[in-house]
Amino acid sequence: MSHKNREEQTVRENMHEIIFGAHTFYGWLFDMALLVVIVLSVISNSLETVAGVKDLWADGLFWASWVFTGLFTVEYALRIYCVKKPWRFVFSFWGIVDLLAILPEYLIFLFFSSGGHASAFAAVRSLRLLRVFRILNLSWFQREGEDLGNAIWRARGKVVVFVMVVMIIVTIAGTVMYDVESTFDPNSKFTSIPMGIYWAIVTMTTVGFGDIVPKTTGGQFISAILILVGYSLIIVPTGFVSAEVLDRKRRRVISTVSCPSCFTEDHDDDAVYCKYCGGEM
Amino acid sequence: MSHKNREEQTVRENMHEIIFGAHTFYGWLFDMALLVVIVLSVISNSLETVAGVKDLWADGLFWASWVFTGLFTVEYALRIYCVKKPWRFVFSFWGIVDLLAILPEYLIFLFFSSGGHASAFAAVRSLRLLRVFRILNLSWFQREGEDLGNAIWRARGKVVVFVMVVMIIVTIAGTVMYDVESTFDPNSKFTSIPMGIYWAIVTMTTVGFGDIVPKTTGGQFISAILILVGYSLIIVPTGFVSAEVLDRKRRRVISTVSCPSCFTEDHDDDAVYCKYCGGEM
Amino acid sequence: MSHKNREEQTVRENMHEIIFGAHTFYGWLFDMALLVVIVLSVISNSLETVAGVKDLWADGLFWASWVFTGLFTVEYALRIYCVKKPWRFVFSFWGIVDLLAILPEYLIFLFFSSGGHASAFAAVRSLRLLRVFRILNLSWFQREGEDLGNAIWRARGKVVVFVMVVMIIVTIAGTVMYDVESTFDPNSKFTSIPMGIYWAIVTMTTVGFGDIVPKTTGGQFISAILILVGYSLIIVPTGFVSAEVLDRKRRRVISTVSCPSCFTEDHDDDAVYCKYCGGEM
Amino acid sequence: MSHKNREEQTVRENMHEIIFGAHTFYGWLFDMALLVVIVLSVISNSLETVAGVKDLWADGLFWASWVFTGLFTVEYALRIYCVKKPWRFVFSFWGIVDLLAILPEYLIFLFFSSGGHASAFAAVRSLRLLRVFRILNLSWFQREGEDLGNAIWRARGKVVVFVMVVMIIVTIAGTVMYDVESTFDPNSKFTSIPMGIYWAIVTMTTVGFGDIVPKTTGGQFISAILILVGYSLIIVPTGFVSAEVLDRKRRRVISTVSCPSCFTEDHDDDAVYCKYCGGEM
Repeated sequence: MSHKNREEQTVRENMHEIIFGAHTFYGWLFDMALLVVIVLSVISNSLETVAGVKDLWADGLFWASWVFTGLFTVEYALRIYCVKKPWRFVFSFWGIVDLLAILPEYLIFLFFSSGGHASAFAAVRSLRLLRVFRILNLSWFQREGEDLGNAIWRARGKVVVFVMVVMIIVTIAGTVMYDVESTFDPNSKFTSIPMGIYWAIVTMTTVGFGDIVPKTTGGQFISAILILVGYSLIIVPTGFVSAEVLDRKRRRVISTVSCPSCFTEDHDDDAVYCKYCGGEM
Repeated sequence: MSHKNREEQTVRENMHEIIFGAHTFYGWLFDMALLVVIVLSVISNSLETVAGVKDLWADGLFWASWVFTGLFTVEYALRIYCVKKPWRFVFSFWGIVDLLAILPEYLIFLFFSSGGHASAFAAVRSLRLLRVFRILNLSWFQREGEDLGNAIWRARGKVVVFVMVVMIIVTIAGTVMYDVESTFDPNSKFTSIPMGIYWAIVTMTTVGFGDIVPKTTGGQFISAILILVGYSLIIVPTGFVSAEVLDRKRRRVISTVSCPSCFTEDHDDDAVYCKYCGGEM
Repeated sequence: MSHKNREEQTVRENMHEIIFGAHTFYGWLFDMALLVVIVLSVISNSLETVAGVKDLWADGLFWASWVFTGLFTVEYALRIYCVKKPWRFVFSFWGIVDLLAILPEYLIFLFFSSGGHASAFAAVRSLRLLRVFRILNLSWFQREGEDLGNAIWRARGKVVVFVMVVMIIVTIAGTVMYDVESTFDPNSKFTSIPMGIYWAIVTMTTVGFGDIVPKTTGGQFISAILILVGYSLIIVPTGFVSAEVLDRKRRRVISTVSCPSCFTEDHDDDAVYCKYCGGEM
Repeated sequence: MSHKNREEQTVRENMHEIIFGAHTFYGWLFDMALLVVIVLSVISNSLETVAGVKDLWADGLFWASWVFTGLFTVEYALRIYCVKKPWRFVFSFWGIVDLLAILPEYLIFLFFSSGGHASAFAAVRSLRLLRVFRILNLSWFQREGEDLGNAIWRARGKVVVFVMVVMIIVTIAGTVMYDVESTFDPNSKFTSIPMGIYWAIVTMTTVGFGDIVPKTTGGQFISAILILVGYSLIIVPTGFVSAEVLDRKRRRVISTVSCPSCFTEDHDDDAVYCKYCGGEM
């Protein structure tokens, strides 16, 4: 390996630590800067759709949009440059998210440069926010995020069963409501079974928009029952997540230490002597 | 028993294992296929009621409906064939659900073949989804379902008391609101006490459709109190289910240690002597 | 005491046991019958206000109303007859509730016999439902009701603080929203500060009727913050009630038994031998 | 120090105990009186904005407003008088809140004496309610408030992560909904991305005003998913707060036993030897 290559190698490694890591000061600074740019770019994109703001600052927002895209493009290039296996990165989850953060801007420029309708890409652009998770994951809140994720993961079986039970109930309730309402109310907004299911989801989760409401006595009676069932159901998974969290908390505190003399467990983290045999820990 | 009978017997037993069981590969495959067919038939039935879709695919959906019914009929016949006591199956809970999954189609064909209004049967048809519970119960999530069911079952006393308290509160609140609103607002949508109770249920559970709202100052004041009561009440049963779940979890953790003398389980982690026989652990 | 008096005394005592008690078969039967009559009378009163039903069954409902009132009057008289200190009963909480269950009917008859507007009394009439609590309290669910009541009672300090915090937040939020909305939107439905507070309560508790909604950008921004605060706040008291329930549960299971040999506690209810010293319990 | 000065010193100290303290009877009385005046002044300010009430009691409310301001001014002067470092108090958090409680009234008098629009100050005036927290903090509920505060504080990491996750989800959901709805529904109320985010917050937290609702099939489908995600998400932090509260409670229970040798606390109920010094318990 030539001297130049070795030097480049070191540059790459340092860059990798800054761009992908978060333990060094410059890595932390890079993450912070990236976070600010992401949030600013999302705010700027949002403002572009507000009628009053667009009229006033159209030019500013247009240029801001390109500045952000430029920064993200440079960042994307640097990421590819400093990883050891560029293609693997490009096709990884975060690689695709990074690409999606910049691609829409170029596509809009190429195909809608005359100012045509480009909003279909705005949604893709908002996926940029997903990148915030990467930053969070790297540096702060990692343990908190892990705890939350673990609790959900460990309760996943119950959550899946719960969601399936909810789906079955809303499907049956939506069908019954469509039947009852569309039969007895000619102007019913329950125009189809999928509409009934949409209403049942909105109702059972206590969102209750009120755009579609039962007008017939029978429909209102069935609604009341569905609402009470939904109100009771939400209680159950809450209890399970609470239990998972608490259980995990207890295990972490307890099961890590065991007495070297009598091999008992269940000692606190700050125990100096065994609480059962009095032997030194 | 003749050879042929014995052979038939074996065929029946194998079929029983495939159709009713879930522990063999073919049993799992059968359940999966059934699950897919049930979900597809429900989606197909739902789409039939969507104006735009019906116009486009009317024929396709009509034939799909009959294909699904045919499959369910064959399945129903096979279930009757391979159980030992057919009549007991037919009048069992799942036997009736299976019959309700196919009957409406035939009744619609017989009585509404001219294309008349058949939606009354659509609701019955959606009961097919209940069959998903049987599949779930057999194969996956059995333990999760059991846990959920147990937690609800053990908290049933509290849930009943809670629901009764809620019913009494909504009845009184609904009556009071009907009085207040219908007295002071001539165009009130609180047209009767049952309507007031419907409103109270919708409000207290925080669904809040907004189709019926208090217009008078007195009514708004009573609403505010009812809402705050409802907001506080939901807390209580949540706590009880959490406690039930956690309690059960703790017991399960405990029961892994068993006494070497009398082989009983259910001992605490820190037990030195067996609490049943007094033998050293 | 004459023989007749003693006989009357016995009759009274037996009646007291049937009417006020719930441990004998006839006491249970009386409670059940009373429960049915109360529920029927409330349903009958509710139906009286439904336009369609009233037209059809006006006479039936009128007579039913008097039959129920007659039964409650007889019951009230019997209660007074068989208690030892009638006046104390009359002015007790349940005595007043019992009187309120029959009084409105007679007052309506006296003052509105010409068929005038009597709905003001309907609300009082619905207080009859409170009597269901007495029955529940006596016989079934007593322990469940006690548990629920205890959990709420023990968490009362937190509930009061929580309600006060909520009241302060909704008052400030309601005032701010009134200012913002009524200043920038001339047709605002935020017509006064009390209206703003009503809106804030409806919003923060996630009821969200939608009859009053912010129209200005500023108002929508403040709403979004208020909603997120409300969404986060509800979590807190839930946790506290869970903790109270669980704590109480643990104490009940644990602290009742202590070992007679080594005086240790923390034994399960079903322990035969002490888990610490092996001595018989 | 002269006799007069010393006397003044004593007067100041006594006043300080009454005004700032809550442990003496007069201190309690002062707090109670202040609480009543604050609540009355807020009610009076609220009523001023109600059209009907203002017409009737305009003069009364005007004078009441000045009486309350006068009382608060005297109180503010006394507070400055009896603290040792007046300027430090004036620029402290509570000093500013106290000033904000009286300043608006004088500013309105100076600049809007002709009866002009003064509502911008009404909001500031409502900050008076914050002073209730000071009273609560001093006297009652201090422990309850502390417990609530501690539980939130200890779960702050999770709450921050949770709020960030919610913010990211509502931003993406709001952008997607704006795209879908504004593309397919020309009269859509999803007029901009910020509007979409506002809708997503209102929906995901189950408030569901219903002022903005999806009209397109795609929008309703995305809504249903967002609602189910929101419904599932609220469960998670609830569990964490429950766990924090319970954990804290357990620790408090534990710490009542103290080691007879080294006087340390924080021992488990079943400890036989001190975990810090190894001495027998």
